[in-house]
Amino acid sequence: MKVIATVKEMQAWADRIRRRGGRIALTPTMGYLHEGHLSLVREGQARSDYLVLSIFVNPTQFGPEEDLAAYPRAMERDCAMAEESGVDVVFAPTETELYGPDFQTFVSLERLPRHLCGRCRPVHFRGVATVVAKLFNIVKPHVVVFGEKDYQQLLVIRRMVADLNFDIEVVGAPTVREPDGLAKSSRNAYLAPDHRESALTLSRSLNIAQDMAAAGETDPQRIVAATQTLIEKAPHTRIDYVEIRDPHTLERVDVVEGSVLMALAVHVGKSRLIDNRILTPGG
Amino acid sequence: MKVIATVKEMQAWADRIRRRGGRIALTPTMGYLHEGHLSLVREGQARSDYLVLSIFVNPTQFGPEEDLAAYPRAMERDCAMAEESGVDVVFAPTETELYGPDFQTFVSLERLPRHLCGRCRPVHFRGVATVVAKLFNIVKPHVVVFGEKDYQQLLVIRRMVADLNFDIEVVGAPTVREPDGLAKSSRNAYLAPDHRESALTLSRSLNIAQDMAAAGETDPQRIVAATQTLIEKAPHTRIDYVEIRDPHTLERVDVVEGSVLMALAVHVGKSRLIDNRILTPGG
Repeated sequence: MKVIATVKEMQAWADRIRRRGGRIALTPTMGYLHEGHLSLVREGQARSDYLVLSIFVNPTQFGPEEDLAAYPRAMERDCAMAEESGVDVVFAPTETELYGPDFQTFVSLERLPRHLCGRCRPVHFRGVATVVAKLFNIVKPHVVVFGEKDYQQLLVIRRMVADLNFDIEVVGAPTVREPDGLAKSSRNAYLAPDHRESALTLSRSLNIAQDMAAAGETDPQRIVAATQTLIEKAPHTRIDYVEIRDPHTLERVDVVEGSVLMALAVHVGKSRLIDNRILTPGG
Repeated sequence: MKVIATVKEMQAWADRIRRRGGRIALTPTMGYLHEGHLSLVREGQARSDYLVLSIFVNPTQFGPEEDLAAYPRAMERDCAMAEESGVDVVFAPTETELYGPDFQTFVSLERLPRHLCGRCRPVHFRGVATVVAKLFNIVKPHVVVFGEKDYQQLLVIRRMVADLNFDIEVVGAPTVREPDGLAKSSRNAYLAPDHRESALTLSRSLNIAQDMAAAGETDPQRIVAATQTLIEKAPHTRIDYVEIRDPHTLERVDVVEGSVLMALAVHVGKSRLIDNRILTPGG
């Protein structure tokens, strides 16, 4: 496995592979790898000849009050896990390598980021779209894999790829969960043991929401209210949002019919956790 | 010569050329070709195996009060000129092909567009950066050629390429002028015959500015004032700006030393004309 730190070397590698007809997959990560990332790696490997895993804690997607400095890092362990998973290249640039002194170009979307996580994280998706566009131009992948856990991010990337005509296939991979249902996340590392039980209310409430929809409940407000009550009962929780939305535009829906997205963000102790599920009504 | 109208066909063509090691140059234009464009084509041909000329009057770079509808178009004549110049592919998509119904992703720069033309054309450079990023992903060029006549545009593209890590060489080509000094521009087509004499004050005043700098004048305000006086004396002119700036950042300069950019934009009748020159002081 190669570890590459510079843009130039990464682009030269990609050119060599492409010239000889090789197909490149990219899995962008912020490191501190877990089983969720490895499932993205496997998804990418199944669709390509070479898998590039990028590790970069991207400063432009963190707001000034957010956890950039505290974000967990474990480069050596990450490289060992990547190698064991058959990753071909780890691309791990420094901050200076990606953001020079006169950096001033951003990719931003007009509508999708207004909703859900974008409301309380105003620069987040601009930072994500920008760094992902950069990674596309550096790694030159044929296919990229993102997790469905970050549902809004996946929509933003799909939209950016379509709008800017990146010739890249975007694959969404299902959320990987702990046996007790907690969605895998690097931010779970912040969870104190007694907060973990409270964190389980996220996946549980999504299941209850699905049960309500399957039983014929069509009023999104009633499903949201039941979910909020369940989460608020758990100690150390503070709801950021619980929403039922159109799964393509993220706009509000008045009636639960067809498939709808249920998405939530909840602070549990020091961690801000997100989870989501597509609700499919019964009847 | 091929004429391609769809993104898919253009990308497939680029892939074929790249796979066999061919080098692609792109010259983006809004059509209504003149000798200036053809000089960009020749510049591109000298640096590549295949020259793609794009023709697209890009709506996102025109403000609501600007001349999008009136912008001159001559597709058949353009194709004939392109073929005669040895262009390999004309890429001429429709507006719908490049901007689908849910389009919402833009590339924008934070500082360079605040100056000069960006002040009175607030969405212009966002539109330029966005469409050029799209063209890069569609045509997949190794090298692109832009004219120095649109100096600020050239700086914006260079910055975008660096910031978003496009693996593309950006070449600036010198302004092509009529024998009387008028910079070639598709917008010269709007010039009534009696306005043309007034339009000559742009290039003449740049020459006078250079003479003043060469003679030791170091105060940018005195050079600007002399230029303004000359332009204002000509009938049918209305100055948008006359500025002396840092040639890299476009920030104001207090003293004319080293190389500085002199840039101007002047309405002559219905045409808004721009021109610029690098001033190199004497002494």
